[in-house]
Amino acid sequence: VTFQPDGQSVFALEGTTLVEAAGQAGIVINTPCGGQGTCGKCRVVVKGDGPAMSRAEENALSQKDISEGVRLACQVYVDRDMVVSIPENTRFFEQVVLTEGREHRVHNQPNIKKEFLELPPPASDDLRSDADRLIAALEGTIDKVEIDFPLLKNLPGILREENFKVTAVIEGKEIVALEKGDTTNSIWGVSFDIGTTTVAGALINLKTGEKAGVASRTNPQVHFGDDVVGRIRYTEEHRNGLKELHHRLVECLNDIILELTASAQIPLSRVYEVTAVGNTTMAHTLLAIDPSSIGHAPYVSVFRDSIDVKARVLGLDVNPFANLHVLPNIAGFVGSDTVAVALSTAIPGSDEVILAIDIGTNGEIIMGNKDRMVTCSCAAGPAFEGARIRQGMRATDGAISKVLVNEEIETSIIGGGPARGICGSGLLDAVAELRRVGIINKTGKIISQDQLPDNAPEFLHEAYTTVDGQPAIILVPGSGTKSGDPVLLTQKDVRELQLAKAAIAAGIKSVCNEFGVSPEEVGCVLLAGGFGNFIRRSSAKRIGLLPDIPSSQIEFVGNAAFVGARIALCCKNCRETARRISQKTEYIELAGRPDFQTDYMDCMMFPEIDPESEPAIK
Amino acid sequence: VTFQPDGQSVFALEGTTLVEAAGQAGIVINTPCGGQGTCGKCRVVVKGDGPAMSRAEENALSQKDISEGVRLACQVYVDRDMVVSIPENTRFFEQVVLTEGREHRVHNQPNIKKEFLELPPPASDDLRSDADRLIAALEGTIDKVEIDFPLLKNLPGILREENFKVTAVIEGKEIVALEKGDTTNSIWGVSFDIGTTTVAGALINLKTGEKAGVASRTNPQVHFGDDVVGRIRYTEEHRNGLKELHHRLVECLNDIILELTASAQIPLSRVYEVTAVGNTTMAHTLLAIDPSSIGHAPYVSVFRDSIDVKARVLGLDVNPFANLHVLPNIAGFVGSDTVAVALSTAIPGSDEVILAIDIGTNGEIIMGNKDRMVTCSCAAGPAFEGARIRQGMRATDGAISKVLVNEEIETSIIGGGPARGICGSGLLDAVAELRRVGIINKTGKIISQDQLPDNAPEFLHEAYTTVDGQPAIILVPGSGTKSGDPVLLTQKDVRELQLAKAAIAAGIKSVCNEFGVSPEEVGCVLLAGGFGNFIRRSSAKRIGLLPDIPSSQIEFVGNAAFVGARIALCCKNCRETARRISQKTEYIELAGRPDFQTDYMDCMMFPEIDPESEPAIK
Repeated sequence: VTFQPDGQSVFALEGTTLVEAAGQAGIVINTPCGGQGTCGKCRVVVKGDGPAMSRAEENALSQKDISEGVRLACQVYVDRDMVVSIPENTRFFEQVVLTEGREHRVHNQPNIKKEFLELPPPASDDLRSDADRLIAALEGTIDKVEIDFPLLKNLPGILREENFKVTAVIEGKEIVALEKGDTTNSIWGVSFDIGTTTVAGALINLKTGEKAGVASRTNPQVHFGDDVVGRIRYTEEHRNGLKELHHRLVECLNDIILELTASAQIPLSRVYEVTAVGNTTMAHTLLAIDPSSIGHAPYVSVFRDSIDVKARVLGLDVNPFANLHVLPNIAGFVGSDTVAVALSTAIPGSDEVILAIDIGTNGEIIMGNKDRMVTCSCAAGPAFEGARIRQGMRATDGAISKVLVNEEIETSIIGGGPARGICGSGLLDAVAELRRVGIINKTGKIISQDQLPDNAPEFLHEAYTTVDGQPAIILVPGSGTKSGDPVLLTQKDVRELQLAKAAIAAGIKSVCNEFGVSPEEVGCVLLAGGFGNFIRRSSAKRIGLLPDIPSSQIEFVGNAAFVGARIALCCKNCRETARRISQKTEYIELAGRPDFQTDYMDCMMFPEIDPESEPAIK
Repeated sequence: VTFQPDGQSVFALEGTTLVEAAGQAGIVINTPCGGQGTCGKCRVVVKGDGPAMSRAEENALSQKDISEGVRLACQVYVDRDMVVSIPENTRFFEQVVLTEGREHRVHNQPNIKKEFLELPPPASDDLRSDADRLIAALEGTIDKVEIDFPLLKNLPGILREENFKVTAVIEGKEIVALEKGDTTNSIWGVSFDIGTTTVAGALINLKTGEKAGVASRTNPQVHFGDDVVGRIRYTEEHRNGLKELHHRLVECLNDIILELTASAQIPLSRVYEVTAVGNTTMAHTLLAIDPSSIGHAPYVSVFRDSIDVKARVLGLDVNPFANLHVLPNIAGFVGSDTVAVALSTAIPGSDEVILAIDIGTNGEIIMGNKDRMVTCSCAAGPAFEGARIRQGMRATDGAISKVLVNEEIETSIIGGGPARGICGSGLLDAVAELRRVGIINKTGKIISQDQLPDNAPEFLHEAYTTVDGQPAIILVPGSGTKSGDPVLLTQKDVRELQLAKAAIAAGIKSVCNEFGVSPEEVGCVLLAGGFGNFIRRSSAKRIGLLPDIPSSQIEFVGNAAFVGARIALCCKNCRETARRISQKTEYIELAGRPDFQTDYMDCMMFPEIDPESEPAIK
């Protein structure tokens, strides 16, 4: 499926909805009704012939819509190559609400304003200083404005060169720059989501709130350690370690800024503000602040509140007077990325209880509504990212990303070529499907081949093998792989997944306990982050990673942290919302809870299979 | 006369009071009663035998006082070498009032505070970030405090090295530094008066408000131009001119800071705030802001309001987190030094109308009371500083500083050695005395020798000579000079003085007109600045420089601008008073007033001599 105008293509298994396929492409479609086809919000345009209309679509769409190819993304199941155009107002971002319920939009109220001014030049009857003249001209528009000190140095020159006709750039209550002529139409900002592995940046037109481009890079800090603990250790063991981590990250941000501005043909000096979210270690190293205390018990951060600092102080290549706003974190292992998830999913404005989960090496869980928010961080380990799995790999070309067991073991390979290994979502699917068909039992054991029921189809028997003395299941035979070796799921792989999913599930349980609801009572589960968008909800429930609630109540919200960084860039007031999230949210330290170990052990088990709703293969 | 504990010596003519002599030494003694001997505020201790007691002293002082050598400085006329100790509370500064009348002291309320904190270290049940921990510990003492960004970088290190026992340095609402151990007893600041010619700095103990030392240097910018116009021209004609002026001035400030801190044995890092006053050009070059617009009509400055900037940004060698506060100015030619004069002389809190005059190359005049303030700047030219005068020189060793015509032409020479020339106060005295005895007439002409009255004493006849074809008066014969040539007062010198004094007098008149009082109705004239403290009030009135009011209503207030810089350093609220002075004071541009030229011409004349009060020599 190719999505327009993004131009992104994904490979989707037959039977995937367009909402899910778009999620795979990182595009989040708003589904307020939970994919029931009733709200009509997920309108997309399918080019050429598409699958047949559902009854829900016939009810929701007008004749004109239908003639223009409009479809409801939640009702269209992929059965062929498709080109789908997703209008801006179908996308999740535009529907985000912060404080007034999920149906409202975020207003574009950036912290940066421009005013074109034609000042009267000094005269014998008007002896005001340059600064007073400038401030007076803004009176009424922005009162009590101050002038950033470095600007004072340029003030007399630019005023006189331009005959006192200039554009003032105002950040909050401060004039930070003056520009020649009328530049009021060019106000830009960049928002960053700084992941441990990937850094993503978006160029935003602050005049309109529109996104002009997105670019991403591998976080160059990966050279110094795969995960945050490794990076913290690097700063401790190398004299200039922190400096290196800091400089490499800033370089990476500069690369992204350069790519974004170059392709939009905007000078770097027109970027007036930068926002960033990330886990606490990323935020500390971005700001060149020693993250050591995050790496050692009791794991506290140096700062929690948001930080504003001149971008030039850090070496960011933007307007020299631009501000960098780093969103606040909650605790050593719950960073501003989690705050940004809560911000973009409007938890603090919600009546119903929302559970948002960002699954990665660390799973961050935040649950709440307008009255209360609770968060925790679960050390899921790297299994979801393919590490410690025999043939595990990241979700790139050649990775098995979906597994379906029907009349054979069907797999979906990223990139469409031969299989090279298995990524997190494929692992999750494989275990869930093998659990469904009974090859994996409740305790996670791959049952021996002779325990297979008599009516087990032949292809299941053929999938059995052993490796290093342990049982394994062949997902893709050697004939379908690049190396010629089959891609296997081993007993040990299943154990690794159990450990990882138990960490998340026990975290969810703890947060729910603290909140006073059972996981099954949660009204809405939001899956954020790259991994969350690739998994199948049914598989996640089947292995007990997610609570057993209707799939329609489980939504993919894409890279919600990245969206939160954009919201903070576009909406000054939303920064205060983020600060309130940071201040109000109760952090649970799981290690300190007496019930956590028990929960964790319990969650290692797989749920019972309900033969009614989850029919095993006959 | 030598003053203790300052250790400064001055040479005073017989008949000078100790108040005046102290003024010469830059020490301002408070004389609320105007030197009548009635208030008893000017108590000093004269070591050894002093002149006889006046009746006023006998009334005001107790037996115990008398036995301890206490005298009233306004009643003691110098008649011998004396060593005089001036207690702190006799000095003007301590009596300064800002808003409540002249009898109140300035409270020591610096912008810098220190708190020694013993923080609880992080623990599993106390997971606050370092920053939150620190801010919480200050709650109740200083609320809503923020942490300066560069400090965040040091925060985790110093907290842990010091086991969470540290001293926080707080500037306003911002924690700017953390120090090891308890350093709450060491809080220092430096206040500067940056003159065109001389830079003076004072080291202040911000814990007590006490002055720990004073140092001064010639402003190294003199190499680039004698006056502000020359320096502005230098910045315009040399590519890096502004940079040079800026760097040399900062170097000079650093020299002074080093001298002050070294002699008080204080590390540079214990200086947490710096304040500065100066004329507008000095303030601009200190901040590296282009002063060109001050040098060309209509003579506006780039900024008027006060400026706060991190001292490290300018390269000042103090605590790297220290703030530099530059007081606000009023107009291109009325700088923060004038604001500081108004601040230290408490004009905005005064019921009576005060006229404060700072005489230099530019004379700044500020007049007002608690309801209204008016200011102007007069281009007096450099005559008062000895320039354009045939044998003019600065007030240094060898300069005639006082002239008295009685039975001969008596002169007082700075340093006591042979005469080398004449400085401003000597020039003023010479003209005033020769006017009194009738040698100079009302229009300023030196009458010809044959016009002398018949009873004129022989020594007047002998003083006549001619030089370059113009009449001149011998002040010191060749036998009393270093070069062997006599020191003369020429007709042209008199004309130069007339131009200079007319500029000041016409300025006073304009300000009075604007204010709606006649100069003679002014209740209190304050003479500020170095020159003001060397002149004789009677001479200044006699030549028409000052209005003809009783001498007791003319006070010397020493370097009131320097005192103002110190007040701003010690008293945070006083900075707001200074800003109000800057905002409220009405600036009169003399060149733009139709009556100014006429006034100026009128003021060129000398006042009539009243034979009653000013007896000519018989």
